[in-house]
Amino acid sequence: MRGVPDAPRSTRRGHHDDRLMPLDPGVRALARDLYRQVRDLPIISPHGHVPARLLLDDQPFGDPTSLLVTPDHYVTRLLHASGVPLDTLGVGRGPLDEDAARTAWRALCTHWHVFRGTAVRYWLDATLHGVFGTDLRPGPDTADELYDLLADRLRGPAYRPRALLDRFGIEVLATTDDPVDDLAAHAALRDDPTVTTRVLPTFRPDRYLEPAHPGWAEAVARLGEAAGTGTGTYRGWVTAMAERRAYFRAHGAVSADHSHEDVGTAPLDDVDAELVYARALAGTVAADEAVALRRHMLLEMARLSTQDGLTMTLHPGVRRDHHGPTAARFGPDTGHDIPLPGAFTDHLRPLLERYGTHRDLRLVLFTLDESVVSRELAPLAGFYPSVYVGAPWWFLDAPASIRRWRESVTEIAGLSRTSGFVDDTRALCSIPARHDMARRLDAGFLASLVAEHRLDDDEAADALVDLVSGRPAEVFRL
Amino acid sequence: MRGVPDAPRSTRRGHHDDRLMPLDPGVRALARDLYRQVRDLPIISPHGHVPARLLLDDQPFGDPTSLLVTPDHYVTRLLHASGVPLDTLGVGRGPLDEDAARTAWRALCTHWHVFRGTAVRYWLDATLHGVFGTDLRPGPDTADELYDLLADRLRGPAYRPRALLDRFGIEVLATTDDPVDDLAAHAALRDDPTVTTRVLPTFRPDRYLEPAHPGWAEAVARLGEAAGTGTGTYRGWVTAMAERRAYFRAHGAVSADHSHEDVGTAPLDDVDAELVYARALAGTVAADEAVALRRHMLLEMARLSTQDGLTMTLHPGVRRDHHGPTAARFGPDTGHDIPLPGAFTDHLRPLLERYGTHRDLRLVLFTLDESVVSRELAPLAGFYPSVYVGAPWWFLDAPASIRRWRESVTEIAGLSRTSGFVDDTRALCSIPARHDMARRLDAGFLASLVAEHRLDDDEAADALVDLVSGRPAEVFRL
Amino acid sequence: MRGVPDAPRSTRRGHHDDRLMPLDPGVRALARDLYRQVRDLPIISPHGHVPARLLLDDQPFGDPTSLLVTPDHYVTRLLHASGVPLDTLGVGRGPLDEDAARTAWRALCTHWHVFRGTAVRYWLDATLHGVFGTDLRPGPDTADELYDLLADRLRGPAYRPRALLDRFGIEVLATTDDPVDDLAAHAALRDDPTVTTRVLPTFRPDRYLEPAHPGWAEAVARLGEAAGTGTGTYRGWVTAMAERRAYFRAHGAVSADHSHEDVGTAPLDDVDAELVYARALAGTVAADEAVALRRHMLLEMARLSTQDGLTMTLHPGVRRDHHGPTAARFGPDTGHDIPLPGAFTDHLRPLLERYGTHRDLRLVLFTLDESVVSRELAPLAGFYPSVYVGAPWWFLDAPASIRRWRESVTEIAGLSRTSGFVDDTRALCSIPARHDMARRLDAGFLASLVAEHRLDDDEAADALVDLVSGRPAEVFRL
Repeated sequence: MRGVPDAPRSTRRGHHDDRLMPLDPGVRALARDLYRQVRDLPIISPHGHVPARLLLDDQPFGDPTSLLVTPDHYVTRLLHASGVPLDTLGVGRGPLDEDAARTAWRALCTHWHVFRGTAVRYWLDATLHGVFGTDLRPGPDTADELYDLLADRLRGPAYRPRALLDRFGIEVLATTDDPVDDLAAHAALRDDPTVTTRVLPTFRPDRYLEPAHPGWAEAVARLGEAAGTGTGTYRGWVTAMAERRAYFRAHGAVSADHSHEDVGTAPLDDVDAELVYARALAGTVAADEAVALRRHMLLEMARLSTQDGLTMTLHPGVRRDHHGPTAARFGPDTGHDIPLPGAFTDHLRPLLERYGTHRDLRLVLFTLDESVVSRELAPLAGFYPSVYVGAPWWFLDAPASIRRWRESVTEIAGLSRTSGFVDDTRALCSIPARHDMARRLDAGFLASLVAEHRLDDDEAADALVDLVSGRPAEVFRL
Repeated sequence: MRGVPDAPRSTRRGHHDDRLMPLDPGVRALARDLYRQVRDLPIISPHGHVPARLLLDDQPFGDPTSLLVTPDHYVTRLLHASGVPLDTLGVGRGPLDEDAARTAWRALCTHWHVFRGTAVRYWLDATLHGVFGTDLRPGPDTADELYDLLADRLRGPAYRPRALLDRFGIEVLATTDDPVDDLAAHAALRDDPTVTTRVLPTFRPDRYLEPAHPGWAEAVARLGEAAGTGTGTYRGWVTAMAERRAYFRAHGAVSADHSHEDVGTAPLDDVDAELVYARALAGTVAADEAVALRRHMLLEMARLSTQDGLTMTLHPGVRRDHHGPTAARFGPDTGHDIPLPGAFTDHLRPLLERYGTHRDLRLVLFTLDESVVSRELAPLAGFYPSVYVGAPWWFLDAPASIRRWRESVTEIAGLSRTSGFVDDTRALCSIPARHDMARRLDAGFLASLVAEHRLDDDEAADALVDLVSGRPAEVFRL
Repeated sequence: MRGVPDAPRSTRRGHHDDRLMPLDPGVRALARDLYRQVRDLPIISPHGHVPARLLLDDQPFGDPTSLLVTPDHYVTRLLHASGVPLDTLGVGRGPLDEDAARTAWRALCTHWHVFRGTAVRYWLDATLHGVFGTDLRPGPDTADELYDLLADRLRGPAYRPRALLDRFGIEVLATTDDPVDDLAAHAALRDDPTVTTRVLPTFRPDRYLEPAHPGWAEAVARLGEAAGTGTGTYRGWVTAMAERRAYFRAHGAVSADHSHEDVGTAPLDDVDAELVYARALAGTVAADEAVALRRHMLLEMARLSTQDGLTMTLHPGVRRDHHGPTAARFGPDTGHDIPLPGAFTDHLRPLLERYGTHRDLRLVLFTLDESVVSRELAPLAGFYPSVYVGAPWWFLDAPASIRRWRESVTEIAGLSRTSGFVDDTRALCSIPARHDMARRLDAGFLASLVAEHRLDDDEAADALVDLVSGRPAEVFRL
């Protein structure tokens, strides 16, 4: 093989200025020119999972493992599939001592090959090179050297959360928060003049919309307390939701996020809603009633969005905690949430018939089912002024998937009916790499339209800036 | 950005001879050679929506808006999504005065950017350049100049419908017609020696197959009158259908088109068919019975096709009039018909078990759900001599979608089991651009097979001519 | 067209060293280098349909038709779609005399164009050139010459089954076998020192898991006899299955293959299982009960796999014998098995909750529904250590489909969670071409990752060898 040395290499060569650029040299040149115009634009991250508390406390990350391995289910799931037990990786164990952290790190490095071609490999490459400045390739021989190097860096002030936030040029960072959260961390960050990033809470009320889930009655009771209003009736529940949304809005929130098994929004009449709600509180609700109430509640959330202006984001269609024994032992978000078929056309119809043309609604639809992109999402966003097609989500937030998505959406709904890039991550260090990836891919996509003579080059440049800055500003009213 | 002037450009550069050609220079050269051989072949349009009356009357188009904006729901939907009300665009308003027409045109031009990368942008580019001979780029600054230029052209004899038909080289043009239509316009066109295009009616009986739809009973009564036979019984309905199909056949029709929510074809026995039909006439039919009767009727249509030779085209899987309030105000076909999941394997089985190997049946299957192309359509067309995979339809009639479709179908069912290009449009001026687009993309596709050494170049040339001329001739018996 | 001679060509030029290589010259060079490293590695075929008896008998193939046409439903289906009756092709007719064989061969050659761009065309090209050493292009003018040439070759010792096996470099070849088979042919092959290929049986118990199918009761009775244990009870059925699996294991089997309409694995309790089983034996089982029992039985098969180590392969989601009249006349596997929508997430959950993390389970999931690849298969294989994504199956075992599949899987689950290539064929002569195709495409895929700077070149080389040799060895414990 040309240029392959005989000895195993410990230095990566992959982190190249032209990474993810189109393969044809002519198109690549066009794409490079486009990319340069947006490479250094500030990052707007309107939906993610970095906790505000992490930024408020601004403590050093303890070690490479607790930064890059344990909390990132993209990383742990594939290691688990490759035979590494989750507890070896620190999942569900609380803080790790150095031995345990090093063991977990070695597991990552000795399984580095299983990540070849994955999105997580791309982000880790970018993190190691772009954030930590090392070209050491992870592997059994470099595991300890890398661990030491990263651990050393992490002790320095330049690697504290806020310093990273600054370095990454993150202008807006949305977190994900429970409706009963007092948002004290957000308030403190807002009041701190040294924090230049806008750290915005996001209203995430899923658990209060699932009357059949264990703990729902207790949760809505707490919701009522937080709102200062009774949730003993459905009407009270609605009032409490409106109160807490207003509270979030006052603390800077721009969106409410919803993730249920489906996006059904069929309404109940007032009497039925109260009746089913009462049964749910009494613990006697039937499964289909609980689903009907949840759908009615989701419709209500859309109505509230038309009033308070919180952009509504929908992330449906996942079987959460697919492997019960793992969920029981390690908790949720441990790598085995598995997608289901998507269905938006009929499920969203009640919502869209009522509010789809409302001037104050913004509705962003995400999917893990690629078959609905051209079939349902792009056609919906191509008619309803409220609807935007959300950026590729989760498993699909990866180069080839993003290309397929952009190809599928654009011909039907254009560029303007998309959400702008959303990183949706809890991995702080990967944020710049993720946004940079999207910019590179969009530059490549637009360059191919120019090369096919479907777009003039000045239009492509204008469009790319709009995707990076204009879309999130419009969709999330920033 | 290289070559981007400082000032905004008013001249487009996108309409290039190499548009849509493959990006790799070597493959592009192969594709160009292939394309040249079919570029000027006559256009065969076996399925579309240009009204025969338009051609018979041959009146000048009034203004650019009523030609290019108001009637084209591809255009109005994306403008609506971008905040332009449908009535501003003239939808549902009847003839526009010049002020209103100009206002609508300006809305298109000021929102020109929302069409970037869409198929409709490609067709409008091609129409402006190829039909009207202007390279002015639509935008706020050019809106009035463009309007005036187009309005001026439209007053000239070269822009009357028949003159365009001639200029475009359209050899066959099928319209879409109600079974009770007397087809007088078609007869007049046929008898006019100055009309060289064959203008063929298409039998479109959807409304008569939906017993649960409002107005069905009145419709079938009219059908009976037109056929000169009673439709008070199911047997009478069948006879009336056969009569009207024969009438259409006598007036040149080559196909019958069907678009229902699904392609179910499960049979009823004679007694049940009569019973449900009677209930439907009486207005007491249950929803599931009405569906069962519709499926039985669709099966009957296939049987009639085996007798009269009308090619049966199926366009299923759309939730029509998704946004009730818009439908109520502006009527059907106003941009919010949204696709549903496709399902052919089981739904078509009764039909195919009976008639799938019948030598006189031609059945063309269209879909808006890309996931069924490789899963169901290509496998069906790869076995049943009656089945052809219809060209990418509607939202999927766009460059990248067409490429995906051709890639998905060809490996499984080859090239010969496809329908040939179908433009399915009511936008007369876009017809040459649409057919040209298909020819370019097929040239590119075949060139890539040659470049991968999967096909010899003489085979590619032969195949391309067959796609352009041979397929429609065979599939629609032209 | 450049380089196209005026006269029809009888010599193909398609079988080129660079076939299927990437189109961009730079990436093609990288891919060539990668491909060279695996081109000549031995073929491992862990799942296929060549009968062991064919190899044991080692008789000359009678004629080109009975080798390349009649038994290959990939070939006959598209000829049937093109108007050639199946009996003309020898389907269902037993041995053909020379006239009939020649007539069928001519039908293939005169319809050669209908295979343009298909996978079967690629394999036939490769067979004619690579196995028979001819560049004659099939066509009406060359049909007889080709027939004679092939018939002549087939009379020689170099074209007997075992000689081909040797020439092709097939190290492992798995067959597909009924649980009651005595595997005498396998034993004889194993004991023959001149046979260097490991010919392994595969346990395929489908018919014994379909209590509603005609003949099921008789089949399970035979199963009991073969196992030497009663199958009058469900418990007996399980014991008989375990016995026969052990017998297969002792004869070298490494996997059990299952193909049902769905992959449901919901359990029944012991009492219900016995009850439904008894009803099934009595012929009084309801359709939904039979499905429930089949799903329970499939779960049981997984349990047995955790005990005996047979890799479990699942090939679900096909409507078998779609065209009843053809099935009645010509039998099964005659080209009209049509795929259905895939669904794994919920259907497999009971199995995966019980055994998904069992260290001794290997579970390979195949699909004909491309929409489930990124939605379900890759996410499942990216978490469960037992799950591998099966290579593109059947209609999808074709160049563009394989590329789409690799693109969809890799970003989510990497390369290591895939099965390695599986040819799944009964066409012995196509085996080398199929494996070679996969190697070429994987080389091209990996080259593009290198060219995008997502992978170093030494990693790509290592990964490619692993796909060819490492994956089948691990997944099938070879």
